[in-house]
Amino acid sequence: MRNTMKAMVYYGENDIRFVDRPVPELLDPDDVIIRMTKTTICGTDLGIWKGKNPEIQLVSRQKTGHFSGRILGHEGVGIIDQVGPAVKNFKKGDKVIISCISRCGTCENCQKKLYSHCLNGGGWILGYMIDGTQAEYVRVPFADNSLFMLPSGLDEDAAVMLSDALPTAHEIGVQNGNIKPGDSVAIVGAGPVGIGCLLTAQLYSPFQLIMIDVDENRLAMAASIGATETINPSQEDAVAKVRQLTGERGVDCAIEAVGIEATWNICQQIVKEGGHLANVGVHGKPVSFAIDKLWIKNLTVTTGLVNTNTTAMLMKSCCTGKLPIDQLITHHFHFDEMEQAYDVFKHAADQKAMKVIVEY
Amino acid sequence: MRNTMKAMVYYGENDIRFVDRPVPELLDPDDVIIRMTKTTICGTDLGIWKGKNPEIQLVSRQKTGHFSGRILGHEGVGIIDQVGPAVKNFKKGDKVIISCISRCGTCENCQKKLYSHCLNGGGWILGYMIDGTQAEYVRVPFADNSLFMLPSGLDEDAAVMLSDALPTAHEIGVQNGNIKPGDSVAIVGAGPVGIGCLLTAQLYSPFQLIMIDVDENRLAMAASIGATETINPSQEDAVAKVRQLTGERGVDCAIEAVGIEATWNICQQIVKEGGHLANVGVHGKPVSFAIDKLWIKNLTVTTGLVNTNTTAMLMKSCCTGKLPIDQLITHHFHFDEMEQAYDVFKHAADQKAMKVIVEY
Amino acid sequence: MRNTMKAMVYYGENDIRFVDRPVPELLDPDDVIIRMTKTTICGTDLGIWKGKNPEIQLVSRQKTGHFSGRILGHEGVGIIDQVGPAVKNFKKGDKVIISCISRCGTCENCQKKLYSHCLNGGGWILGYMIDGTQAEYVRVPFADNSLFMLPSGLDEDAAVMLSDALPTAHEIGVQNGNIKPGDSVAIVGAGPVGIGCLLTAQLYSPFQLIMIDVDENRLAMAASIGATETINPSQEDAVAKVRQLTGERGVDCAIEAVGIEATWNICQQIVKEGGHLANVGVHGKPVSFAIDKLWIKNLTVTTGLVNTNTTAMLMKSCCTGKLPIDQLITHHFHFDEMEQAYDVFKHAADQKAMKVIVEY
Amino acid sequence: MRNTMKAMVYYGENDIRFVDRPVPELLDPDDVIIRMTKTTICGTDLGIWKGKNPEIQLVSRQKTGHFSGRILGHEGVGIIDQVGPAVKNFKKGDKVIISCISRCGTCENCQKKLYSHCLNGGGWILGYMIDGTQAEYVRVPFADNSLFMLPSGLDEDAAVMLSDALPTAHEIGVQNGNIKPGDSVAIVGAGPVGIGCLLTAQLYSPFQLIMIDVDENRLAMAASIGATETINPSQEDAVAKVRQLTGERGVDCAIEAVGIEATWNICQQIVKEGGHLANVGVHGKPVSFAIDKLWIKNLTVTTGLVNTNTTAMLMKSCCTGKLPIDQLITHHFHFDEMEQAYDVFKHAADQKAMKVIVEY
Repeated sequence: MRNTMKAMVYYGENDIRFVDRPVPELLDPDDVIIRMTKTTICGTDLGIWKGKNPEIQLVSRQKTGHFSGRILGHEGVGIIDQVGPAVKNFKKGDKVIISCISRCGTCENCQKKLYSHCLNGGGWILGYMIDGTQAEYVRVPFADNSLFMLPSGLDEDAAVMLSDALPTAHEIGVQNGNIKPGDSVAIVGAGPVGIGCLLTAQLYSPFQLIMIDVDENRLAMAASIGATETINPSQEDAVAKVRQLTGERGVDCAIEAVGIEATWNICQQIVKEGGHLANVGVHGKPVSFAIDKLWIKNLTVTTGLVNTNTTAMLMKSCCTGKLPIDQLITHHFHFDEMEQAYDVFKHAADQKAMKVIVEY
Repeated sequence: MRNTMKAMVYYGENDIRFVDRPVPELLDPDDVIIRMTKTTICGTDLGIWKGKNPEIQLVSRQKTGHFSGRILGHEGVGIIDQVGPAVKNFKKGDKVIISCISRCGTCENCQKKLYSHCLNGGGWILGYMIDGTQAEYVRVPFADNSLFMLPSGLDEDAAVMLSDALPTAHEIGVQNGNIKPGDSVAIVGAGPVGIGCLLTAQLYSPFQLIMIDVDENRLAMAASIGATETINPSQEDAVAKVRQLTGERGVDCAIEAVGIEATWNICQQIVKEGGHLANVGVHGKPVSFAIDKLWIKNLTVTTGLVNTNTTAMLMKSCCTGKLPIDQLITHHFHFDEMEQAYDVFKHAADQKAMKVIVEY
Repeated sequence: MRNTMKAMVYYGENDIRFVDRPVPELLDPDDVIIRMTKTTICGTDLGIWKGKNPEIQLVSRQKTGHFSGRILGHEGVGIIDQVGPAVKNFKKGDKVIISCISRCGTCENCQKKLYSHCLNGGGWILGYMIDGTQAEYVRVPFADNSLFMLPSGLDEDAAVMLSDALPTAHEIGVQNGNIKPGDSVAIVGAGPVGIGCLLTAQLYSPFQLIMIDVDENRLAMAASIGATETINPSQEDAVAKVRQLTGERGVDCAIEAVGIEATWNICQQIVKEGGHLANVGVHGKPVSFAIDKLWIKNLTVTTGLVNTNTTAMLMKSCCTGKLPIDQLITHHFHFDEMEQAYDVFKHAADQKAMKVIVEY
Repeated sequence: MRNTMKAMVYYGENDIRFVDRPVPELLDPDDVIIRMTKTTICGTDLGIWKGKNPEIQLVSRQKTGHFSGRILGHEGVGIIDQVGPAVKNFKKGDKVIISCISRCGTCENCQKKLYSHCLNGGGWILGYMIDGTQAEYVRVPFADNSLFMLPSGLDEDAAVMLSDALPTAHEIGVQNGNIKPGDSVAIVGAGPVGIGCLLTAQLYSPFQLIMIDVDENRLAMAASIGATETINPSQEDAVAKVRQLTGERGVDCAIEAVGIEATWNICQQIVKEGGHLANVGVHGKPVSFAIDKLWIKNLTVTTGLVNTNTTAMLMKSCCTGKLPIDQLITHHFHFDEMEQAYDVFKHAADQKAMKVIVEY
């Protein structure tokens, strides 16, 4: 094993670099070191690049007195290279899916299945509070609770979608939105997570699945994988159209999968009395909540970071073909082309990009 | 039976009058006419008086071409005087509690137990879309589904609280807030509904019940009927205090029982990750929702109008002494003093008033 | 309208006759009279024929002093011919699906959505406590709560399956069995209700759907409409085979869809710890419950009569093609051939019969 | 620390001895060694003594080729004496409550909160598959997930009830029985677990709490701590009496807390349509399940071994006085008197014994 490796590192707002870094080492008894074989880029990584998460530097400086960059990435598949002495469920050579959420498994929140808010240093930490997966090797803490054995027969590209995109869509969009057979559902935003919602919603056989986005290319993709109707708000009044499509009733569930006020606004206007508004988007600003109109509507509004407690189920559903998630993957790059991969993903609309797979 | 009766009638913004009106008659086969024996005044009645519900006049003019005033009130107890031919469960002479919600029992929403949004002309209609209970007689539609037989042994004053105040507190505050044994709960607003939340929350044995209000008199009342801690935001930082009382964790459930941005703001700052914010307050304006901070917190925010589908349970709990709701009642008036009753209730803080009982 | 009509009438054990009867008349203000256009025969009708329900005569004699026969049948589609004065949702000429469950909509159980146990004379009454649908006309009480408007575009034969077979399968099998994406499910019994379970289970995307039956013809049908594996207990050890298919874990949900001890026994041996055993079969004798082995297994065992509170959802799912229930229908008869239809259905295995449609 | 200690050891049917044994040592990195300060005896310990669990010897012989006795006991409080290197949440000197259930925290069942069926060697193991707590020292595996810090202010005798008796009553009786405000509840069996059900049921404010037992002494105790009615089946027809007390409706929830057919039979006859039968009793034989009468009643029957996932909540409720569990404790012994303690507990009825506390 070499001492250095290539990695995509965040140094500050608008400053990421593809550089040499030391290969990580085991620190805690329940750590593993994984040699990456596939990774991808998340919208969150772009957000960090743009400077939306200055807490990365702040926390590092508070803890260690300095900030020497953070390796990005919290998704991917790899082969276990080294195993800490307290790890029970995995061994060197195992091919695994890395979960974006690490968890201790013992704290109050882990016992509530609220792994995203693990109180013992877990939660979303990879590529955020500790170095991440966009490197040749990554250290994963709480290994017994943060990895999934790659099932034989599961396409490895598809497996990368199970690190974050698909469980986020399913748990924070579909499950929080309480989607049931017979429901009318609208998804606002046809990016990777919105498309993930569209796919995983179909596990529950809703009656209508309306996709709303301004990108015609993405709407066409949505229509081809299960959207029963599509709406482009740059061309028609989305709220009026949803009402028309639902017999003037509105939807049982609206999923916000963008993270801006305009899409939130559509959502809060189209939910039926007694319905659900599931927010998946990462917002940078507060929104106006029309509670003067909505106090009476018996709504349930939810927010959340993924817990990855349905990843195992999603993995099984992928294996049986119920979730054709390979359709999400539009581009492939070699790890050497990491900068180019970022460039394409940053200009997703122009590039007709959804998710990119980076291979080593 | 006489042809006219006294009634408290809303004619427009800041214009209510205690006047003579015709005694109501049966219109539909499932109507009953009730001779009132007790009624009360709700915060919503004050809102109508202040002009917050101009839809009352608008809808009347759309339907009938004119608006000749609306008898207020949606709460009370009375004796059935006339019974429509399709009514099965009640007969002349029965003493009943009038539910603030009427329901057809057959529509999509009634089948979902979402009676507040009955699609066949039910929901909250008394004292709003049709004449109400602040009169000597009232017509109640959908009688089989809108009345509860007064149980022997239940104090009649207490029974008046079962028309609206207590089910609203329980369903929209406590049930929506998912209050469970061991929970930390904060209630913002110690008015009749907030106090109702405090009482009904105790059916589920929470660990902490923190009451927050600016009125020391109401806080003292709360402390005497089960609040484990009280906070006066005019005297200390409520958010900081809640954090301190909860070991810097925040509460599992925050109940908004006022309906203004200041109280909403407290609520959205004190809910723990994975927690519930149950809005009970009737808001007149939108609020700012700090989704930039809360998108990650796995919150559930709920709104709603009462369905009165737990009234029967609450009635049983009152009968066994588990809900000492007579403590909510601070003033008694005779129906002749209706104007005085409104005056006292309008100046509730000065008058140390919580709920008033009006007797006939 | 004529005064008499043909009807299939039960007179006592092993004694049913296709005879002339008076056309029914409106009795209660919420009744309708329906002219039947399609009906079918249920396994329960066979049970009555065989004498399993002597309460039919007993109750009739208790109430009226005599028993002059009961018209069978609780399923079908028809056109409303007469409408009681209190009926609100339907009018003469409407084409409707008749639900096997009638309900008052106001009692304690109807408010719990436990319509099967309506306390005001509803529940399963058609073809049981009152005359049923295997006639040219039928009186349906509680019409507003016991009929569904036939949606345009829904095949009328398929609609007949919505009276009983499909909601029973969905509610008592699939919903009670808590079937979720990723689950392993076994259904014991591939008759109409078992096949209904197989179809409606797929609304929730389980991982495995194992069908168990001794009839190879029915197993082949099951395999063609979604069973992932089939087992014939007359040819192999069903319990051992289920264990093998589930990695020695057992199933998350076992559905008993026959009603005899042998099939119950399979079910109680194949459920995984923490799993569900949903009994749908109508049993004539007690069974031995191996609670000495199962007390420790954290099982949930459920029983039940259908509430038909998911019929509207199932109707929507049929309209979108998610439930290909026409596949259940193997035979067609004209109403004049009612005796022949019974004969075929009685010998279902030999006749390769699943459900028969009777047309008028 | 000495090399030997006293312990109560099971050697085979009707053969337990209070003998010297080696002090246990750390075996796995997540073990702790605890010096016991309080323990108790469970009905399950008596069952082992009587030979109901021959698997103890069998499994030991399969694994190790021999069986040299098993130290009994799975309950108690103690002080941590030695800590394995992978233990994170506890340190030497901590005073802890030992949970009767150990769990890995990572397996499929632990992720379902089904800790009783941990797939990695957890579950109920203490005093069963490994040596237990009726000794001066005990080794506890999976320490981070199997211990609770003793809260200051909690009576230590009461804390012993949190190891097993109270969580079993709450989870397998009250939670599985779905007890809600307003419910009618019957508990059959007023032993320690039945009394635990009576206490924890009150966290949910049921309307009626009917205790059924043949021991007048225990019925009197039940009446003094919250039973609204008591029934002695040796003196009156329990089924008829329950029907009378519930207006001929039966109970929403019947809890079986004995484990024999006679008590099961009472339970299956008194549950209302739509109700719950929660089995807590440990049965030695199958029972007859009257599914010929009950298939139609929409019942939910549950079984189970405790998961101890509500222990933390119960601990909080004890601290606030909501659960006066000290009332369960009738006798105190010193650890030297362990044989006498067993003798008293074995003859609980004669001795008017409920739970005994054994102090070191």
